[in-house]
Amino acid sequence: MLLFAWLSTRPGSTVVYFPNRIVKGLEPWEGGSKTRNPFAWIKEALSSTEQDVIDMSGVDTAVYFVFLSTVLGILFLSGIVLLPVLLPIAATDDGVKKNAHSTTSNGTFNDLDKLSMANIQENSPRLWAFLLATYWVSVVTYFLLWKAYKHVSALRATALKSDEVKPEQFAVLVRDLPDVTPGQTRKQQVDSYLKSIYPETFYRSMVVTNNKEVDKIWGELEGFKKKLVRAEAIHEESEKKGQGTRPTHKTGFLGLCGEKVDSIEYYNEKIKDLAQKFEAEQKLTLREKQQGSALVFFTSRVTAASAAQSLHAQMVDNWTVTEAPEPRQLIWSNLTIKFYERMIRQYAVYVVVFLTVVFYMIPITFVSAFTTLENLRKLLPFLKPVVDIVALKTVLEAYLPQLALIIFLALLPKLLLFLSKTEGIPSGSHVIRAASGKYFYFVVFNVFLGVTIGGTLFTAIKTIEKKPNSILEILAKSLPGNATFFLTFVALKFFVGYGLELSRIVPLIIYHVKRKYLCKTEAELKEAWFPGDISYATRVPADMLIVTIVLCYSVIAPVIIPFGVLYFALGWLVLRNQALKVYVPAYESYGRMWPHMHTRILSALLLYQATMLGYFGVSKFVYTPILIPLPISSLVFVFICRKKFYGAFCHTALEVASQELKETPHMEQIFKSFIPPSLFSEKLEDEQFEDALSQVSRSESFV
Amino acid sequence: MLLFAWLSTRPGSTVVYFPNRIVKGLEPWEGGSKTRNPFAWIKEALSSTEQDVIDMSGVDTAVYFVFLSTVLGILFLSGIVLLPVLLPIAATDDGVKKNAHSTTSNGTFNDLDKLSMANIQENSPRLWAFLLATYWVSVVTYFLLWKAYKHVSALRATALKSDEVKPEQFAVLVRDLPDVTPGQTRKQQVDSYLKSIYPETFYRSMVVTNNKEVDKIWGELEGFKKKLVRAEAIHEESEKKGQGTRPTHKTGFLGLCGEKVDSIEYYNEKIKDLAQKFEAEQKLTLREKQQGSALVFFTSRVTAASAAQSLHAQMVDNWTVTEAPEPRQLIWSNLTIKFYERMIRQYAVYVVVFLTVVFYMIPITFVSAFTTLENLRKLLPFLKPVVDIVALKTVLEAYLPQLALIIFLALLPKLLLFLSKTEGIPSGSHVIRAASGKYFYFVVFNVFLGVTIGGTLFTAIKTIEKKPNSILEILAKSLPGNATFFLTFVALKFFVGYGLELSRIVPLIIYHVKRKYLCKTEAELKEAWFPGDISYATRVPADMLIVTIVLCYSVIAPVIIPFGVLYFALGWLVLRNQALKVYVPAYESYGRMWPHMHTRILSALLLYQATMLGYFGVSKFVYTPILIPLPISSLVFVFICRKKFYGAFCHTALEVASQELKETPHMEQIFKSFIPPSLFSEKLEDEQFEDALSQVSRSESFV
Repeated sequence: MLLFAWLSTRPGSTVVYFPNRIVKGLEPWEGGSKTRNPFAWIKEALSSTEQDVIDMSGVDTAVYFVFLSTVLGILFLSGIVLLPVLLPIAATDDGVKKNAHSTTSNGTFNDLDKLSMANIQENSPRLWAFLLATYWVSVVTYFLLWKAYKHVSALRATALKSDEVKPEQFAVLVRDLPDVTPGQTRKQQVDSYLKSIYPETFYRSMVVTNNKEVDKIWGELEGFKKKLVRAEAIHEESEKKGQGTRPTHKTGFLGLCGEKVDSIEYYNEKIKDLAQKFEAEQKLTLREKQQGSALVFFTSRVTAASAAQSLHAQMVDNWTVTEAPEPRQLIWSNLTIKFYERMIRQYAVYVVVFLTVVFYMIPITFVSAFTTLENLRKLLPFLKPVVDIVALKTVLEAYLPQLALIIFLALLPKLLLFLSKTEGIPSGSHVIRAASGKYFYFVVFNVFLGVTIGGTLFTAIKTIEKKPNSILEILAKSLPGNATFFLTFVALKFFVGYGLELSRIVPLIIYHVKRKYLCKTEAELKEAWFPGDISYATRVPADMLIVTIVLCYSVIAPVIIPFGVLYFALGWLVLRNQALKVYVPAYESYGRMWPHMHTRILSALLLYQATMLGYFGVSKFVYTPILIPLPISSLVFVFICRKKFYGAFCHTALEVASQELKETPHMEQIFKSFIPPSLFSEKLEDEQFEDALSQVSRSESFV
Repeated sequence: MLLFAWLSTRPGSTVVYFPNRIVKGLEPWEGGSKTRNPFAWIKEALSSTEQDVIDMSGVDTAVYFVFLSTVLGILFLSGIVLLPVLLPIAATDDGVKKNAHSTTSNGTFNDLDKLSMANIQENSPRLWAFLLATYWVSVVTYFLLWKAYKHVSALRATALKSDEVKPEQFAVLVRDLPDVTPGQTRKQQVDSYLKSIYPETFYRSMVVTNNKEVDKIWGELEGFKKKLVRAEAIHEESEKKGQGTRPTHKTGFLGLCGEKVDSIEYYNEKIKDLAQKFEAEQKLTLREKQQGSALVFFTSRVTAASAAQSLHAQMVDNWTVTEAPEPRQLIWSNLTIKFYERMIRQYAVYVVVFLTVVFYMIPITFVSAFTTLENLRKLLPFLKPVVDIVALKTVLEAYLPQLALIIFLALLPKLLLFLSKTEGIPSGSHVIRAASGKYFYFVVFNVFLGVTIGGTLFTAIKTIEKKPNSILEILAKSLPGNATFFLTFVALKFFVGYGLELSRIVPLIIYHVKRKYLCKTEAELKEAWFPGDISYATRVPADMLIVTIVLCYSVIAPVIIPFGVLYFALGWLVLRNQALKVYVPAYESYGRMWPHMHTRILSALLLYQATMLGYFGVSKFVYTPILIPLPISSLVFVFICRKKFYGAFCHTALEVASQELKETPHMEQIFKSFIPPSLFSEKLEDEQFEDALSQVSRSESFV
């Protein structure tokens, strides 16, 4: 943190610490004075309002803060009751000592155990306090979650009501078009169908095309353009120095071999070639590569919102209409996947994820076994001299098995994102939500349950086989022993995690290295410091893991609560700074992440209630059944929240969409904003687009 | 049937045998000749097309015939393969004899058993034929159900597409209105909210009122009017005879005691009094008894259809918009029940139904025990002389316990209808569907499972407690023994059931008795012969029970199939006649019954597949696991059908609603058709309705 305080005041690094403000065209810090209090950011973060966050970083970020502060509230309110009440009760009993005498304990209990429920004697009346505490935590959670859901729902409504024109509010995505009748184009099919249903508000349609080829060419073209600018920059620099050498490079693999050519000339030529090919491919794509789906534009928000919720065709697997995501979120390649294929993909992915979550150790063990040094030496003989160095050999032999695991864990988020994308989801934010859910199950199952049951795994499995309903009991028995581990885990998470987050050491170093050695142009520099967004796909599940851990231990070992409070308080503070000044959101889903967070907090609560049931059972407390209403009420709570709020997160409510706009929407602009960059071209314009994109029909639209 | 052939040609009974034609204003039979072939109805039924049925009796009836013919098709196709293949295979084996020797059998097996799977020896290769037969029946079912669903979906689409103006297609039902802000009336609230969302197509709204009081007065008024007409008719008749006595009656209880008054004068006076009270109450109702829901009318079918599918308010429990049912189906008292109350009522009803289905014997046993003769004598001393007659005593003692059961079973459909209505469903046809579903579970659980497991109930329960997955086994073991019983059951059902149905003896007798002794006026006569509709609530579950029985026994004892075929063939024929000539449909739900029928046929199939799995298991056939894909494929089939077709049965597809109409709809007429008879009044008209019913706003509607 001190590091951050020092580094952030240095002018050279402003782009690393204030990129969001710079992107928005603001001064790095307000007032514009050169010197500034190193701890001013804390004041700024604390004094910032929700509206500031929405303005700087969008509704999604604001919703993330609602999540942080709700969890903080739950833990804080639990803590102020649980800590002063339960700690003295636990400390003055002596269950641990007694147990120590009677069992062949391995002596792992320490001072912490004396402050936990493990120190209470079996069936002691003191357990009543713990039982009431269990209720208190649940009630606090319900209350705060209810308030938060209401708040987020209002946030979403306000954002959607906004009188700014947002292109995605005027568009819908139509998929699963039936086959065209001969002699009819896709465009005619879509237009005539929708015009007959919405004669007054239908504006225009854009048939989805297969952009794979044109995207590739466009990518190459853009790459060469960048390289050309770079080469010119190098040339200019060299001319300034008076040398005037023209940059050259080799055309072969990675610039290492092949003919040596003059870079500027070479790139110019390449660009000319590609530009022609690109234009031809654009035309071809628009004309020949039309697919069975389309984006459709309406002149009214209400029509678009209501169309996205209505059944259009008698057969549900035809003409599926859904809300259009933001243009920047659209995953074009997923738009054309058919109804049943989407369903099959979805279930296939679920199965794969389930297998990954439960059996991920198996392939890793396999890979580890395969990549022993002996094998490596055989398969990759050129590594032999390296491998034979004795010192390295020892290190490798020790760490090679873990290496596979580490690589797997590092790649897991990417894998889950890829899997979620494979499901056929058309919008980027939805993919991230889906991946985040999968990651949550992975961490809770493997880290929380894995560590807790961990050591006693094999005995556990045997017991489960004999008594299937003893899972809870096993979980409960192994809980207290791991309290210390998780306490350290949470502490480590917030010290190291948030320290790194705030000081942004890694991006800082990368940026400075790049600036020094690689970047030659303005565009490249911007690329080097551009921060990306708060990566919810991993951040939310990581926070959720902490929620799960702290909730589950809150009554058993209340000492964990202050750590949880600290984690979320610090997280709130640090991320407030980052959201306001660093991260640039990649999309805006108007708080659609919230229902996922809500459900997952409640699953954590359910897990907590279940373990408490088991733990009280283990403590042989005769009033344990008093806890049974808790999980039931959690389920009822989930159900009611879903009924009351969830609808408005799936769809846009019409009362929200019917708010008046500041100005008449410029439909042509809205339409153009959805054209993918690879298909966009000033020249092509109307005559060319006509094939895949329907013509304006103002004469008919505004009768 | 012969009885019918003779009776139906007698002119006095045409109103009993051809009421639907008479109501529609047609001649009882075509051609108009006095004499007619007594068996012409068979020819007429067979030659009638689906369109005839739709014209005469609506889409719902046509869908019922699709159901009958689909089941007929399934059983027929199963029969022509199973009978010639399985019967010889079963007959030439001798498993029964062997079993008879080895076990202490009670000798119930007869010739039928020799034709069934029970006659196959354990793990005999002959079982392969039965296994393939199991597959054949399933595949035939899938195929025909798929075709039928497609067909019904098209029927529904055609009916909804129709260019006739149907009032319910222009209306939606808006429930769960939030509280009005002070100074605003309900009407203003509804109108301003909806006008802002649908500025162009909103026509007018009708706030739902609490009509309990006004309905009561209206009922009394109508009753007195009827009585007046009747009294006048009697007077006239008497004058004709030259006596000229004015009819009199006593005002007391049931006309048995009290003051004697001149009927015509008395009724006239009463009507005058009530008419005033009625008018005052109408005004009061419209002004003061407005409730939190409304019917809203649009000038476009598409808007109404899409509004019914869209979320209107940010909170889902406000402004719930659903399709409006037909005016004649509307259950006004259910319209005002709130969102959460509806949910709670629904679950409460489910619990009650579940308890009724499973434990209905308990209250009946209790009642039976309570109503012994001894108790009756004590509680109702005036029955003493009757009860003490020896002959009567014997009969009563024997039948009193059964009496409770019989009364319960007779009242059950009414009870289920009442329960379904209590759920808060706003439309009559939906209530009937819900009741039909409940009745299905009742009959399948109690008749089919009850009889099958029946005798061995207590041993069965003990075994289930020990081995929970042995339910199937028990079911399978007790199946063959009951084949004879169910064969007789099916035969009885179609001989007696359809005989009674076709000859309509009970309505005929009632009609003739009423005509002779009670009816004095035309209206009363019509009431006496008016047939009502095909009562789906009991008819469909009864048919379903036969489907379940025949399917479950189809492979075990294929001899049952011809009986099933006969049942449905005869049913089709008889009901075709009844639908064309007798029953007058009470509502039109455009085939919404079909998904329920479909799902229930599939649940019968699942039960069949499950019992077959169990039965093959009992036969110790080692290839039994080959059957496991069957229930899974059934579930997948259910899922796919639901995905593909069900949406269009829940909502009106927009492509269907967007068909052009024959004429511009007369909105005022549509609006008036929804006014309940008790609130309708020529005099009241616009000025009065203004309070509860919003004003026309043509000026704004058609900008």
